[in-house]
Amino acid sequence: MKIVVVGIGLIGGSMAIALREQFPSMRLIGVDINEIYLNTALELGIIDERGSLDALSTADRVIVSIPVKETLKLLPGFLDQITENTLVWDVGSTKHAICQAVENHPKRNQFLAAHPIAGTEFSGPKAAVSGLFEGKPMILCESEKTRSDLFAWAEATFTGMGMYLRRMKPKSHDKHMAYVSHLSHVSSFMLGKTVMEIEKDEQNIFDLAGSGFESTVRLAKSSPEMWTPIFEQNKKYLLQSLEAYIENLLQFKAAMDTEDYEELYQQMKKTNQLTDILNGIKTN
Amino acid sequence: MKIVVVGIGLIGGSMAIALREQFPSMRLIGVDINEIYLNTALELGIIDERGSLDALSTADRVIVSIPVKETLKLLPGFLDQITENTLVWDVGSTKHAICQAVENHPKRNQFLAAHPIAGTEFSGPKAAVSGLFEGKPMILCESEKTRSDLFAWAEATFTGMGMYLRRMKPKSHDKHMAYVSHLSHVSSFMLGKTVMEIEKDEQNIFDLAGSGFESTVRLAKSSPEMWTPIFEQNKKYLLQSLEAYIENLLQFKAAMDTEDYEELYQQMKKTNQLTDILNGIKTN
Repeated sequence: MKIVVVGIGLIGGSMAIALREQFPSMRLIGVDINEIYLNTALELGIIDERGSLDALSTADRVIVSIPVKETLKLLPGFLDQITENTLVWDVGSTKHAICQAVENHPKRNQFLAAHPIAGTEFSGPKAAVSGLFEGKPMILCESEKTRSDLFAWAEATFTGMGMYLRRMKPKSHDKHMAYVSHLSHVSSFMLGKTVMEIEKDEQNIFDLAGSGFESTVRLAKSSPEMWTPIFEQNKKYLLQSLEAYIENLLQFKAAMDTEDYEELYQQMKKTNQLTDILNGIKTN
Repeated sequence: MKIVVVGIGLIGGSMAIALREQFPSMRLIGVDINEIYLNTALELGIIDERGSLDALSTADRVIVSIPVKETLKLLPGFLDQITENTLVWDVGSTKHAICQAVENHPKRNQFLAAHPIAGTEFSGPKAAVSGLFEGKPMILCESEKTRSDLFAWAEATFTGMGMYLRRMKPKSHDKHMAYVSHLSHVSSFMLGKTVMEIEKDEQNIFDLAGSGFESTVRLAKSSPEMWTPIFEQNKKYLLQSLEAYIENLLQFKAAMDTEDYEELYQQMKKTNQLTDILNGIKTN
């Protein structure tokens, strides 16, 4: 089996590692515009060889793990190139535009829109790790449009990586991702920006970071190359959630202004229920 | 040596554990209005016995690790009770009001205003752990007002816990804490509140949380009993930082509205410098 990974970063690299664990004899070809990434992936043994997009025409499986704007542009051409038993899946954080871009492609049934809910704030093949997908959800969109034999292989393979599968409609995926994930990134990036602006002494940021700041700005280390196009493609839902967030912050500020600390206490007490939700315990 | 811990939660409990490691023969007495906390701390061996505030009059050392509003109310009375070689230190997250409250107390020189920059989002003695203070900063305020023999003991003891000491003026401490830590808590609590309001399906929150949400809302699990009085005591500086944060979010929203993605990219790129600051590398 020959697998081509287009984009050999954190997710592409970690998926390559997970695939090799299941298919030790497969041949893994890395394609990336970043020469350093390619060489690093080769040195780390994540890929067997460096390749170009020409490799797509002889691939059995293709992972597309590049920024979502590039996927939108390149995916139809990738599908043009593949042979009739090749399966292509992407791992992007937005799904509606990508599904639309290939909706009428003659090889639509050889594509699977996927989104593994896994990752870290780090980028590149050095950040790739074994076991990244263990116990994590894999969101699949419009999987009924993927040819059944190819889907069956993907289902077994993702499950083999330790993932549990969830189906979502593309728009619904994007909306829920905006609410839960993308808003978190904006919140974190803007917190980082604010603190760097108001706290001029970097030593203070370093010394005091352990008191909550460090984890809250973890996402502000994320790649702008990856996130700018996600925000662009998910504009509508992200703006909705951002407005709701700003509104809550303004209400918090108003309660501080009027010294209504009982109100703040109640809001925080209620928000503590998140602990149960994140532990998987239904609260209602 | 007899040490009394008033408030046997995460910080008080962890400090008790760290003290026992240095002074195995000391006697540790826990005082708390929470009976369950006291019994748990006794069962876990964190304290040697349950006590009442009467124990202060025979204590060699006293740790005050209760919500900052209570410290403000009770600390002068605690100082009234102690004998002449007792050292009392608090570990609260605000320092200006507390230092003012004891400014003219006849036993001011037996008090040390301290703030260990360490903790987790969990509360209570079950959350207390060994090694919590290892490698962490201990902020000390107005330490020149503490009697030199008592201060020397504190310095050696905190250093013995693996902490490095930093001196700050109380107002300066509160300002920098508002900027770096307290704002992070507001940001996280309001993110949690927003997501619980807009994302009605708890299964989605659970499934998608791995994509950044979980770490960003970690602080939203924090205790409202502890945080409400911190926000109250640090109103001025917290409001300043909150206004700056809201302003940045509004600017981000405006750039999204006008589709100025280049601006968003540049803002995020610049914010990535946080990685170096948090790793202790000076960026300018």
